[in-house]
Amino acid sequence: MLSVKSTEEIVSKLFERLKRITHLNYASALMSWDLETYIPSAGAKGRAETLATVSTMAFEMFTAPETGALLEELLSRQDKLEPHVKDIVRVCYRDWCRKRAVPPELHRELTRTSAEAQVIWRSAKMESNYAKFEPYLKRLVELNRQMAEHIGYSEERYDALLEEYEPGLKASDFQAMADVLKDGLKELIERYGSESIPLEGNYEQDKQMSLIRKLVFEYMGLPEDRFRIDVSAHPFTIRIGPKDVRITVRFKENDFVSAMYGAIHEAGHASYELGIDEIYEHTPLAEGASYGMHESQSRFWENAIGRSFGFIKLIYPELKEYLNLSYSPELVYRAVNTVKPSLIRVEADETTYNLHIILRFELERMMINDSAFNFKELPELWNCKMREYLGIVPVNDSQGVLQDIHWAFGSFGYFPTYTLGNIYSAQILWKLRQEYPQLRTDEIDVDLLKEIMNWLREKIHRYGRSRLPYELLVDATGWKPSPEYLLNYLREKLETINPNS
Amino acid sequence: MLSVKSTEEIVSKLFERLKRITHLNYASALMSWDLETYIPSAGAKGRAETLATVSTMAFEMFTAPETGALLEELLSRQDKLEPHVKDIVRVCYRDWCRKRAVPPELHRELTRTSAEAQVIWRSAKMESNYAKFEPYLKRLVELNRQMAEHIGYSEERYDALLEEYEPGLKASDFQAMADVLKDGLKELIERYGSESIPLEGNYEQDKQMSLIRKLVFEYMGLPEDRFRIDVSAHPFTIRIGPKDVRITVRFKENDFVSAMYGAIHEAGHASYELGIDEIYEHTPLAEGASYGMHESQSRFWENAIGRSFGFIKLIYPELKEYLNLSYSPELVYRAVNTVKPSLIRVEADETTYNLHIILRFELERMMINDSAFNFKELPELWNCKMREYLGIVPVNDSQGVLQDIHWAFGSFGYFPTYTLGNIYSAQILWKLRQEYPQLRTDEIDVDLLKEIMNWLREKIHRYGRSRLPYELLVDATGWKPSPEYLLNYLREKLETINPNS
Repeated sequence: MLSVKSTEEIVSKLFERLKRITHLNYASALMSWDLETYIPSAGAKGRAETLATVSTMAFEMFTAPETGALLEELLSRQDKLEPHVKDIVRVCYRDWCRKRAVPPELHRELTRTSAEAQVIWRSAKMESNYAKFEPYLKRLVELNRQMAEHIGYSEERYDALLEEYEPGLKASDFQAMADVLKDGLKELIERYGSESIPLEGNYEQDKQMSLIRKLVFEYMGLPEDRFRIDVSAHPFTIRIGPKDVRITVRFKENDFVSAMYGAIHEAGHASYELGIDEIYEHTPLAEGASYGMHESQSRFWENAIGRSFGFIKLIYPELKEYLNLSYSPELVYRAVNTVKPSLIRVEADETTYNLHIILRFELERMMINDSAFNFKELPELWNCKMREYLGIVPVNDSQGVLQDIHWAFGSFGYFPTYTLGNIYSAQILWKLRQEYPQLRTDEIDVDLLKEIMNWLREKIHRYGRSRLPYELLVDATGWKPSPEYLLNYLREKLETINPNS
Repeated sequence: MLSVKSTEEIVSKLFERLKRITHLNYASALMSWDLETYIPSAGAKGRAETLATVSTMAFEMFTAPETGALLEELLSRQDKLEPHVKDIVRVCYRDWCRKRAVPPELHRELTRTSAEAQVIWRSAKMESNYAKFEPYLKRLVELNRQMAEHIGYSEERYDALLEEYEPGLKASDFQAMADVLKDGLKELIERYGSESIPLEGNYEQDKQMSLIRKLVFEYMGLPEDRFRIDVSAHPFTIRIGPKDVRITVRFKENDFVSAMYGAIHEAGHASYELGIDEIYEHTPLAEGASYGMHESQSRFWENAIGRSFGFIKLIYPELKEYLNLSYSPELVYRAVNTVKPSLIRVEADETTYNLHIILRFELERMMINDSAFNFKELPELWNCKMREYLGIVPVNDSQGVLQDIHWAFGSFGYFPTYTLGNIYSAQILWKLRQEYPQLRTDEIDVDLLKEIMNWLREKIHRYGRSRLPYELLVDATGWKPSPEYLLNYLREKLETINPNS
């Protein structure tokens, strides 16, 4: 029936469908944003229902047989498609097959179990009571194993889940990089570990916000007409429309570092979303190539640029003006680059952070792959690995295995993308230092930042999801993903800070 | 096929459908709110598209034959339905028939023409160039005439449109009330017309907002967990979820009166939305009974209560505290109750306001009913009526016939609801004065305001759209709608202010 239609007609039918789905997703995005920022407290429950309904509608529309039929017909006429349409059809079909592979009952069961699990996790964490959470975790892992079996894999079950967050990457590849990192990072911690340097003071929220706006708009060059910043309990970035990307920040009155780097981090994510080529608008390709590649952009601005001495020197006049800062640029630089093992991932420094991730990756890989995994032993395994990798052990599970929401959320395969972000970011920095030798000095300026942002847009952002993260990285830098760049970058920085260690 | 199912099954299928539609409408509501408050400027165009798509989806789902089939089946089994389900089925079927009556092409044509017309209207108003807007107005009237013919009417074409805003009301009924009002109001203007009293000062925006929050939360008793206040260019009230109603305000630095009464007005609307019985949630009955009844609630709080001497005396300590006001309560009372004919509807005082409305009603009634209406003459007719009713004539069309957006929006039959709001409000006040004699004195307090709010919820709010406005008013007050209460209320107030006139 379809085949009697012209290719143009089928393309336009497909695009009409994708557009409706995207509009529903934009509506959901705004509702999620509002849920974290401005919603009146009693409105949250109703909002959750509305969100679930609208998301389900978008999901149903995308996974409908009609969508598949249009895609399959176009796949059979690939020669007649424009290159970007070909990309859109290919990626959508990959998504469609993947989503269709999971039976709707399993999908619903996962959604329901994860909603319950989050509630239980919250109180289990509060009470530091792993036993309470254990049955939910076990059930979520079982459901994720089933999902992986439906999706399929060639090497191991965990790969099927990792694929969702980092298409094209195998767990064994990540493990190989993780093994190199473990040795290298432990060595760095041994050599450069030190006490943290508090930059104490009383930093008014308004002043911090003005500083952040200055940095994000004038230094990073984000566009004021397509971007905004609000406050929420947990910082995030969200795309709400083709020209509407937002971030949130969280303030502490006695600490400007966390809000400032949090904002730079989120603005890095936002720059990616804002840089995607318009030809992918209203399709599932108007997103980052992968979670890891997305994270590379936030980590690049937060760490590779933001924690460099050149950047701190550059923005130092603003720190003086907005915060009346009395610490020297040198001290700020040392303070934001301290290496010190700690218990909580989200508070970890740039160096030790990756060990938190590797630990989680190794545990979730075991849980998913090993059908006989003993969940009773998980806290022990956690603590054992903490001792081995970071040399410290949590005093309770709330500071250990219960600290992150990801597993309660039903997300397995997400954690590695944080470290992939660091790996990609360091590699990109290495390439940029070749292209812009000024970047190797401590004398960087706003023009250089602008050139860097343009380079990132040109090499990475604009492609959206039309290419795999691996392809993007190889084409942008010339090198396959490798942890050596990250280790070298950290080693070099830590050496300049601690010349005598 | 439907008839083999149990009534419970059909009811639950209907409710499932209405729920999805309501969720889409809530998503649209949030997107509209954000469009007026926080959206980055470049995001507006994309948002308009998303809004159009999501609204269309809700419209299509409601007007689908499947919705009608469920409703018709349930209408045939009315005896088996619970009373509130019976109401829901009756009102939904009325809506469904009305919406189905309009051919989709006509609906699309109206939407498209009105979108264009609004753009043209904006520049025509700026340039005071009626000729530019005339062809669009003519086309919109033609399309509305067609719509009215499709919908049908017994007395006159305009009735079919008025029904959308004030179900059950005929244009001839409103004209009869308008005729009484015209005489009475002109007499009041003649007797009590005076120069306006400016309450000049420098009122900081933050202080005004704090004052408004105090009045709305502590004096009117709106619930902080289900309600919020933001800033926008044009104040409005919007329901975004079962427990999420929001208003916006607009500030002028040299005038606190406009923001304060604007906020009280919108909070009156909000109290209605917040008071609707939960049994109507996720159905089209979770709305006000009519635009006129909705407006009665905003006008009641803004004018009947807000502009009374008792209320001004009650909140006077807050005016001192937040605004450092130097004017006496007596002067504020006189200032906010001045009668003075002016050109612009939205700036008109409580008394002259209704003449602005009657003028518009009479003109739009002519336009819709008279297929040979000469659009060239509209500005002349406007000015002629301005002279007759208010004794002043605009110097240009931007201050005259072009001042309001309603017609450019394609809305005919909306204007009367403003004056209906005043009529209902005065009648409700009259009844409340019987029930609460304290209300006749100048000594009102927060407890009395609370009792009044409860009375309004009990008699009006909770019913949502389950009853017609006429029925609600008669049952709440014991009297049919009549303009005499409004005239008496105004006369009485103006007499106390000007005892010697």
